Amino acid sequence: MKVGIVGGGQLARMLIEAASALGLRSAVLAASPDDAAAIVAAEVIIGAPTDPVAMGRLIASCDVVTFDHELVDLELLAELERAGSIIRPSSSSLRFAVDKAAMRDRLAAAQLPIPAYFVIQPGDPIELGALGAEWGWPLVIKAATGGYDGRGVFIAASADAAQMIVRQLHDDGVVALIEEYVDIDIELAALVARGPDGSEVSWQTVETAQIDGVCREVLVPGSLSAELGAEAAELARAVADEVGIVGLLAVEIFATSRGLVINELAMRPHNSGHWTQDGSVTSQFENHLRAVLGLPLGETGLTSAAIASVNVFGSEAAPQVDLGLPAALAVPGAHVHLYGKQARPGRKLGHVTVCDGDPLQVRAAAWQAAVALGTPVPEEMEGAL
Amino acid sequence: MKVGIVGGGQLARMLIEAASALGLRSAVLAASPDDAAAIVAAEVIIGAPTDPVAMGRLIASCDVVTFDHELVDLELLAELERAGSIIRPSSSSLRFAVDKAAMRDRLAAAQLPIPAYFVIQPGDPIELGALGAEWGWPLVIKAATGGYDGRGVFIAASADAAQMIVRQLHDDGVVALIEEYVDIDIELAALVARGPDGSEVSWQTVETAQIDGVCREVLVPGSLSAELGAEAAELARAVADEVGIVGLLAVEIFATSRGLVINELAMRPHNSGHWTQDGSVTSQFENHLRAVLGLPLGETGLTSAAIASVNVFGSEAAPQVDLGLPAALAVPGAHVHLYGKQARPGRKLGHVTVCDGDPLQVRAAAWQAAVALGTPVPEEMEGAL
Repeated sequence: MKVGIVGGGQLARMLIEAASALGLRSAVLAASPDDAAAIVAAEVIIGAPTDPVAMGRLIASCDVVTFDHELVDLELLAELERAGSIIRPSSSSLRFAVDKAAMRDRLAAAQLPIPAYFVIQPGDPIELGALGAEWGWPLVIKAATGGYDGRGVFIAASADAAQMIVRQLHDDGVVALIEEYVDIDIELAALVARGPDGSEVSWQTVETAQIDGVCREVLVPGSLSAELGAEAAELARAVADEVGIVGLLAVEIFATSRGLVINELAMRPHNSGHWTQDGSVTSQFENHLRAVLGLPLGETGLTSAAIASVNVFGSEAAPQVDLGLPAALAVPGAHVHLYGKQARPGRKLGHVTVCDGDPLQVRAAAWQAAVALGTPVPEEMEGAL
Repeated sequence: MKVGIVGGGQLARMLIEAASALGLRSAVLAASPDDAAAIVAAEVIIGAPTDPVAMGRLIASCDVVTFDHELVDLELLAELERAGSIIRPSSSSLRFAVDKAAMRDRLAAAQLPIPAYFVIQPGDPIELGALGAEWGWPLVIKAATGGYDGRGVFIAASADAAQMIVRQLHDDGVVALIEEYVDIDIELAALVARGPDGSEVSWQTVETAQIDGVCREVLVPGSLSAELGAEAAELARAVADEVGIVGLLAVEIFATSRGLVINELAMRPHNSGHWTQDGSVTSQFENHLRAVLGLPLGETGLTSAAIASVNVFGSEAAPQVDLGLPAALAVPGAHVHLYGKQARPGRKLGHVTVCDGDPLQVRAAAWQAAVALGTPVPEEMEGAL
């Protein structure tokens, strides 16, 4: 069996590692031969996911095609599906990860908990004063398509600022999604894998720390209660069924004073689930592969009571991430995962996971190793560590 | 950092998986593009480890060279080392894995426990009646070089049979190693990783079941006592120091009524340590890489109380191992590792590891998944399962 992966980033790289362990072949469609996955893949096609020729080559050589990112052309995917290609998740599911406005409409129709929202198409009148008055300021403005890792999300404190941002999005041909600003107690992520037969497994819900929309650390179980975790996992399963996903679904959720609120969806392995490589019986990468291949899903229990996973970022101080490897690997229990990327300030280069009994100790150890690899400690977290 | 691996088998494949996770590059010197590692490697050189040109190409592209097997040319390796290549383990260590006669002499000189043995060079007189009379029949006759997975090991019940076997070895230009036949209570394997600075870590000693010299299952902790396990681990550390290995050393040990007796050495990741991928904080593959790169060695504690790892073999009944994947993955907790090899009766195609609290349950589950993948249950084990 052979799996084709659209996109050559670290998610593709870690999917390739999991595929190799299962005895599967894989091929990657990457933008560049230097991409994280392209440098370790046995078979690489260089091209864009929007290029029918490149996609055709990938599909022709593989039994199933899946994804490392959501920057895809849904029309092209739908056309390929009509021609008989097996694409998982399907274009009809992926729509709700590609298009945040469509996602909000779908979840609203299913009466799932989401923030108040309003969609403004390019050409439509932009009147934000009334929304701000109703929901309170600031407003959150999102590019409905094309954003990732915090890009494409804006906080506007006034009607003027909001208007400017929406106009800019419209000038770029992008639909604007306006949302109420939600006061967050805890940020959660719930992960579900769903097979073509509707079978599902979910992992323990985790607490994430995002700064500027970028995930910095993931704590299992973190500060959330077992009840809240179970409620979030149920919510994620409901979303998975609603969008009919085949593969992995990550649901970013806000815990607020008025209950859980769904923030974003990702239909692929997700940064909030990297801990499953070392802290769960079956990793998100293996279960994504199992799901898209229609194989039975694996157990998702924890292998230890407390798990922390901290992202490794490049910094001015550490131009080469390798140089920190000796110090990082000297941290007892540190599972270091690097993506083979050239270091650049602010670039996500890897993650470190530590699994053990004591939440404070695993978090401290994971940060120690991540810092050894050059990760700057965000100002916002300095006090907490 | 980039690691070159001599040999393209499953050990190389699993080293590549571990290298990718650490952000390392790797290249493989494989006999064929269809080899288990060659089909997943980003960089493959096709050639023999005895070919100076192929070895030169591998060395030129990598920071360190290590091994998937011991069928190497020690003279060539020594020459490359003199020219400044970093080869780990070194040719001077590898000698004791390549040449069983040299290994016996070295361990005897260090007063480590080994069976009574006698070396017969080609051209020397072959007189086995006296040895048989002294040690008792049968005698064990081994090809001092070139054997693996039970090949090159013969049990001779009479002087005539023994003589025939030794003559055949000599006709093939191979030194004969004659050993007393040891009555075995339990077969053990002890695994050590040793860095260039002499730092060492060892894993829990395991019980192995070998049939016809081929490993069928590995049980952690198996039926051995904690004392015996610790003694075996100490023995393995002593051997590691004695041979000055950098990398992974597997020591196959017999527990007998007169104490522990060292059987074979392997200077690479070993079948008896595949369980460490799922059952230990750091796998043998990752620690082998850490050792040969001079990086700190990782923790080797168990992730659960009982672990069973069962090898997957091809059979007439299962011409395609993939077809059994759904049933194997449906076994709760089964970690299925396949090597991407074409199935053939008797060929080692993968392994299944199960980790949990109950030794009987993990063994049964691992066998269930291995059988689902086509593994025949050896007659010798039918009663035990």
